[in-house]
Amino acid sequence: MQLSAGKWRRLKSLTDEQGRFKMLAVDQRGSLRRALSQAVNRPPNQIPPEALTEVKRLITKVLAPHATAVLTDPEYGYPASLEHWPPRCGLLLASEGTSYERAKGKGRRSRLLENWSVEKAQRAGADAVKLLIYYHPEASRDVRLHQQQLVQCVGEECASFDMPFLLEIVIYPLEGSGPDSAEFARQKPELVIRSAQEFSQPHYRVDLLKLEFPADLKWAREFSQGAFDGKERPSVYTLKEVRDFCAQLNEASGVPWVILSAGVDIEEFLMQLDLAVEAGSSGFLCGRTLWKGSLAYYPNYDKMEEWLHTQGVYNLLRANAHAARALPWFEHRKFLQK
Amino acid sequence: MQLSAGKWRRLKSLTDEQGRFKMLAVDQRGSLRRALSQAVNRPPNQIPPEALTEVKRLITKVLAPHATAVLTDPEYGYPASLEHWPPRCGLLLASEGTSYERAKGKGRRSRLLENWSVEKAQRAGADAVKLLIYYHPEASRDVRLHQQQLVQCVGEECASFDMPFLLEIVIYPLEGSGPDSAEFARQKPELVIRSAQEFSQPHYRVDLLKLEFPADLKWAREFSQGAFDGKERPSVYTLKEVRDFCAQLNEASGVPWVILSAGVDIEEFLMQLDLAVEAGSSGFLCGRTLWKGSLAYYPNYDKMEEWLHTQGVYNLLRANAHAARALPWFEHRKFLQK
Repeated sequence: MQLSAGKWRRLKSLTDEQGRFKMLAVDQRGSLRRALSQAVNRPPNQIPPEALTEVKRLITKVLAPHATAVLTDPEYGYPASLEHWPPRCGLLLASEGTSYERAKGKGRRSRLLENWSVEKAQRAGADAVKLLIYYHPEASRDVRLHQQQLVQCVGEECASFDMPFLLEIVIYPLEGSGPDSAEFARQKPELVIRSAQEFSQPHYRVDLLKLEFPADLKWAREFSQGAFDGKERPSVYTLKEVRDFCAQLNEASGVPWVILSAGVDIEEFLMQLDLAVEAGSSGFLCGRTLWKGSLAYYPNYDKMEEWLHTQGVYNLLRANAHAARALPWFEHRKFLQK
Repeated sequence: MQLSAGKWRRLKSLTDEQGRFKMLAVDQRGSLRRALSQAVNRPPNQIPPEALTEVKRLITKVLAPHATAVLTDPEYGYPASLEHWPPRCGLLLASEGTSYERAKGKGRRSRLLENWSVEKAQRAGADAVKLLIYYHPEASRDVRLHQQQLVQCVGEECASFDMPFLLEIVIYPLEGSGPDSAEFARQKPELVIRSAQEFSQPHYRVDLLKLEFPADLKWAREFSQGAFDGKERPSVYTLKEVRDFCAQLNEASGVPWVILSAGVDIEEFLMQLDLAVEAGSSGFLCGRTLWKGSLAYYPNYDKMEEWLHTQGVYNLLRANAHAARALPWFEHRKFLQK
């Protein structure tokens, strides 16, 4: 299986010289607005769009020089951050609208950003297009079909422009259990693995998967006494089983894959990254885990920048070091098969 | 309090440009011989000196390019490794003999390497002299006096050559409890802190302390379910208390300090390093945690070198990243006082 020259060349501009992804995400919109609103104790709709733009500009300015590529959004992030783009730092642009629609049936429906397209991303200088979809293999049939068709549609548009297609899959609890529950922690491995399997099928034309870590380490026996957040939880699996989930995920992913942080604290993320890299991941694309600590200072932009220069850079440097043994993407078995 | 120009200049050659120590230790003798003997299932005295030399040469060759300085011994390590010394990589030479003498009273007595001196280290090109002593504040009086006099003697010799003096303090259980016991884990903070306090006194003329992590993380509640080695243990303190021990150690240390690894696994060491750096440490000087995994391949030197090039370098790169926020040594409060 081979890539077009255009996809190949653009994918190469997202990695370090060895083909490893050490990428910064700053394309958040809804979750960023909520975090800023918490910092000032006001409702999210009172956070002005200019604040999102300024925060994204600051994060990009300080952290981009240490990343191999940055994912941002074309609305708030890219225009104002452009002046800070370092030479040889790749650009990924988000193509989905923020949040999701609660379906009539069971599940979540994603939608595309309005007035945006792969063609426009290409013209704007993007090296890859990213689509985030919420996915649950047990969502109602029409929700699943909607999500699958959305992916296929973006996949085809990307292919027609030789634009690399990065698909981010976010799983969710269908009903009942909250995200920090033993029940959801138990379901997570299967949900992540089955979703990766689904979208590895060739007709989706995905080039790179951005996946959640396939377990919740806070519920793994060895870390269940509050290793990451001080809170004790019952254990639902062992670290050995978690390693096995990672191996299964690597098996399920038919294309190179990177992990996302879902905003966990940095120590937990570094542990996830070690385990993912050990299993065959090609690096990371993460945001909040690196820079969320700066948001508490909003709207003091000087303090935010100072935090980013010290703790933020430190977080990214550690993540980069932990990705030093990631699998170069072109060594993924997909490219080794005749 | 000021340093002589010669000490200042030599200390600077041990760090990165910001004054942080990211140093590799390969001066082990007894413990290295024992590890090699285990790899081939033979008694230690059947490991020839040439094996120590070759293993040290390999480790130095592969890892030194990623370290700001390397500590080796003048007998087995330095002569054969010299050809691999990278430019701008500092050199520390050990001055103690391996192991210790069981005292007639309670405790352990260290001794100096025979036919060796600070003057010889200076001639050989060393940037610092290291002395390891075993110490227990409750050892019998003559043992304590012996250890203290040894330190003072080397301190004076160093001063007379403007040679930086690095003192490594290793604590031990006096009687009864083994090193991996709840009792010793409980004693460790006080033993490390009191020893650092003792040798921070100006008459010892120590420039840099190499200290043990002041707690055993395997016995800290949050990690006690086998986070680092799969073995469950009762909890003897919390992570919050461990942070407090680190702060107390920083308070006790009257000179810049770095931590040693005592051969723990890399994940545990990185966690120790984060906590030490947070408390005010200036970096690390560690060996086994970085390269012990290579010893299992002895006597297959090709396999050892391959392991060092992949996992060994990866371990050191991660440790370097985790030391990125260490306190530059010249910002230690010792140099800020008038």
